[in-house]
Amino acid sequence: MSDERTTIGELKQLVEAFVDERDWHQFHTPKNLAMSLAIETAELMEHFQWIGTEESRVVADDAKLRAAISEELADVVSYALAMANELKIDVADAVRDKMRKNAAKYPADEYRGRWGSGDLPDGR
Amino acid sequence: MSDERTTIGELKQLVEAFVDERDWHQFHTPKNLAMSLAIETAELMEHFQWIGTEESRVVADDAKLRAAISEELADVVSYALAMANELKIDVADAVRDKMRKNAAKYPADEYRGRWGSGDLPDGR
Amino acid sequence: MSDERTTIGELKQLVEAFVDERDWHQFHTPKNLAMSLAIETAELMEHFQWIGTEESRVVADDAKLRAAISEELADVVSYALAMANELKIDVADAVRDKMRKNAAKYPADEYRGRWGSGDLPDGR
Amino acid sequence: MSDERTTIGELKQLVEAFVDERDWHQFHTPKNLAMSLAIETAELMEHFQWIGTEESRVVADDAKLRAAISEELADVVSYALAMANELKIDVADAVRDKMRKNAAKYPADEYRGRWGSGDLPDGR
Repeated sequence: MSDERTTIGELKQLVEAFVDERDWHQFHTPKNLAMSLAIETAELMEHFQWIGTEESRVVADDAKLRAAISEELADVVSYALAMANELKIDVADAVRDKMRKNAAKYPADEYRGRWGSGDLPDGR
Repeated sequence: MSDERTTIGELKQLVEAFVDERDWHQFHTPKNLAMSLAIETAELMEHFQWIGTEESRVVADDAKLRAAISEELADVVSYALAMANELKIDVADAVRDKMRKNAAKYPADEYRGRWGSGDLPDGR
Repeated sequence: MSDERTTIGELKQLVEAFVDERDWHQFHTPKNLAMSLAIETAELMEHFQWIGTEESRVVADDAKLRAAISEELADVVSYALAMANELKIDVADAVRDKMRKNAAKYPADEYRGRWGSGDLPDGR
Repeated sequence: MSDERTTIGELKQLVEAFVDERDWHQFHTPKNLAMSLAIETAELMEHFQWIGTEESRVVADDAKLRAAISEELADVVSYALAMANELKIDVADAVRDKMRKNAAKYPADEYRGRWGSGDLPDGR
């Protein structure tokens, strides 16, 4: 996989060059980029709007759908990197920090096979 | 920056280990992950809900706000990588492919300083 | 039900008075309100993030969950009415017009029990 | 305005008939409807993605844009009513309850001209 050889920095640079060439930094305010992220995630959701949760796994085995999802996911990642570029956020550090926080909040032993302390009537 | 040395694959692996240890793959259906991405992007938007577009740039110079945004952005990226993991999507390839499509759709010369052919009354 | 006796106009007026009293029209730009709607719908989604599609129907029979959902739904409706107020949109007319368009786009005979012409591999 | 004469109940009935005729209740789970609401609010946001906050007010005076926004807003309201139908939520009561809560949370005197206690560096 190309992901094994590509650094976050390289993808950030790709996005930065695209924005630079079009003089689009003026539009890339944090507010606009957050909105753009939400718009792109909605396009991702559209593919799963009316199907069941488990049923949505079919995407993995359907070449056409998987290509469509890849493209929407690329949009999400690109806008996330564009925001990191504008705000000079180190994505790798941010993800590592958050994963550490998450690990403290959701100890593996306590949360194995459980996603929360209960949003459902039976206390799951 | 850590982003210069960290591959996408390493971050994907970090997310994968976290999910594995908690036996959470059962919840990580594409439908649920798309929803989760939308929820996290909304939390990102909350920071910019009532401020102006340009005003939102203050985030870059405010340590506390920048830390909060970094954390939300980390959530977005983590869920994007979780989806890539579930669907075995190569993020680097997907972003490169999409950037090529975008470059064809928005030729730099034609779109320099312009974001579209006009959603606004004056044809911008 | 109170819905049988309450006009859209009355609810719009309720929202308008709330905004007026706080001098919040200055924040209620269409852009900010659209963002707010997205933030509130995300809070609604949070209740269903990790459960199955069918499983989400339990909300109807769980008093506590139903109250939480009612509150989030009220936020969504309030922001929708706030936007209608700012833009002087007649909601009843807009919904009727859209329902007519939808009826033409999705003829009942053709779409009975089907939600689309196929986002799924088997052509559903 | 038609809003002055139309009850929430009438619009709910309109949505209910549309769903009934197509046998779509099977798809209208709370989870799917929450997702649909998020998708429609994103379509609403698209119109304001790259413009300034104040600039977004131009919609009010532009017939074509206003018509497009009305249509997206109708989609949002229709899905909100569809969810109220599925869960037998009284929208008027829910909005009134929430407005009372909001009034207690944001006393008019304290919040006049201010939207919060400070997400911004200068404490606004």
